Amino acid sequence: MQAILTVGSVAFDSIKAPGGEVTGVVGGAATYFSVAASFFADVRMVAVVGEDFDDGRMQVFGGRSIDLTGLQRVPGETFRWKGEYSADLNSRETIYTHLNVFEQFRPVLPDAYRQTPFVFLANIHPALQLEVLRQVDAPRFVAADTMNFWIEGALDDLRAVLSRVDALVINDEEARQLSGEANLVKAARSIRAMGPKLLVIKRGESGVLMTRGQGFFAAPAMPLESVADPTGAGDTFAGGFMGYLASAGDLSDEAVNRAIIAGSALASFAVEDFGLGRLLGLRKEEVSDRLAEFKRLTDFKAL
Amino acid sequence: MQAILTVGSVAFDSIKAPGGEVTGVVGGAATYFSVAASFFADVRMVAVVGEDFDDGRMQVFGGRSIDLTGLQRVPGETFRWKGEYSADLNSRETIYTHLNVFEQFRPVLPDAYRQTPFVFLANIHPALQLEVLRQVDAPRFVAADTMNFWIEGALDDLRAVLSRVDALVINDEEARQLSGEANLVKAARSIRAMGPKLLVIKRGESGVLMTRGQGFFAAPAMPLESVADPTGAGDTFAGGFMGYLASAGDLSDEAVNRAIIAGSALASFAVEDFGLGRLLGLRKEEVSDRLAEFKRLTDFKAL
Repeated sequence: MQAILTVGSVAFDSIKAPGGEVTGVVGGAATYFSVAASFFADVRMVAVVGEDFDDGRMQVFGGRSIDLTGLQRVPGETFRWKGEYSADLNSRETIYTHLNVFEQFRPVLPDAYRQTPFVFLANIHPALQLEVLRQVDAPRFVAADTMNFWIEGALDDLRAVLSRVDALVINDEEARQLSGEANLVKAARSIRAMGPKLLVIKRGESGVLMTRGQGFFAAPAMPLESVADPTGAGDTFAGGFMGYLASAGDLSDEAVNRAIIAGSALASFAVEDFGLGRLLGLRKEEVSDRLAEFKRLTDFKAL
Repeated sequence: MQAILTVGSVAFDSIKAPGGEVTGVVGGAATYFSVAASFFADVRMVAVVGEDFDDGRMQVFGGRSIDLTGLQRVPGETFRWKGEYSADLNSRETIYTHLNVFEQFRPVLPDAYRQTPFVFLANIHPALQLEVLRQVDAPRFVAADTMNFWIEGALDDLRAVLSRVDALVINDEEARQLSGEANLVKAARSIRAMGPKLLVIKRGESGVLMTRGQGFFAAPAMPLESVADPTGAGDTFAGGFMGYLASAGDLSDEAVNRAIIAGSALASFAVEDFGLGRLLGLRKEEVSDRLAEFKRLTDFKAL
């Protein structure tokens, strides 16, 4: 098993959705990613929290293979975000984003992190993603996420990131915006020409589309009877995806396909409860069962 | 190989989409269904056209294993429909629907059709679907389609149809409307309680979800670089689905899963050109190639 380094946000989230509401629960891209990835591999986190992120909150990471040496705790308040979902959960409105300590965040890698073979740059300013890349020593596989905000406001930095990563993991809207192409096949070709040889497009309840070389791989979303809260599903997917790859230590097409399924399985749990609720109590056998369920969901004999 | 009986519309369609426009081309649910199904099995059609549906138009069915004994040609004009698609092709507006000869249509099965083992009731008034069921003699497998119009306006007849069919093949909006459930897992349970043991939900670019017994099977849509016109994609799917089942003569779960892939493959061609354009020139080797492509698109080794 090989370790994964991730950099991204740790936050207090407030979430309103048709099925309920939670206030000030631990969230953030690096959090979801790390908890998910830790089911498969050792994770090294680089992030920042404020003084209000007390030891009780820190328990979210406890008992998992998550190294917190790179988690800075600094004066001030932790990043806070509030969002509200539409009735069908397919869109959400950001009520507020308080960057707080995240505003001055500069990622600093502990020496022990510098040789991590797998790196995931979660959704933060691409200039910070570049700072992390400058501090790692010849990683084997680097993947990044981004968002509309950086596509609109920091495209030069984002282009620099794209030219240096092996994989980009974004959602369909971001893929369309980044490429200027409505069609995902054309969007994928355009984005891969910017650098990443492997592109993963997260499509929510339509599943995941991956392309690499000449081929595509598509995984449907697991049909779920109850979806409470999509927050963090994309980061959870990325955690399962990178976690599986690091655990397999294999970057073959077959391993990448299986990693897409691992990510999809973890994400399918994440949405079943608010915040990290479902992931924190999740047992490894439940993950294995859902991986088998994904096989049954999609398996057919060649015609 | 076993034969398939289908009843539904044959029409002249006018279609406007971002990529172009066609006027008065041959369409209709029974047409798309029959052309698609004829790649796998013998099809027997029950439908009506007007005097304006001349022998030249009839060439659409020529050279295929489609029995037209049950196609009535009567005085008056053929059913005409015009629709216009949104920029992203995900929604469409009906500009007009002229039922014409379809208004007085009563399906009459030629004697040679009565013992057809596979029956597909395309989207017509459920009272007419029932008339067909009264004329068939112990079919082995009956599937039906329907639409919002009958869910709203002919629910009693539709309920009677549902209580008598083995399978329902509808889209996601129809599933939600028929069940009153937004969640597709709950919608599926509710609809299956109305009769059909097998439910296929067509989800457009999100692929297809099938449920039967305790299990689900999901197929993604083939990623396509160019989608011209979604008209008839659902009927084409149904044709590939029923055609494969009839050809296999097998109703096992494995055969049904493969039939979902066959339907998805045919539908993926249908949308590549306007109207029947792509299907009419389609070669069997192209179908085989796309079936293999679907296997590559979705295949992974169990984790």
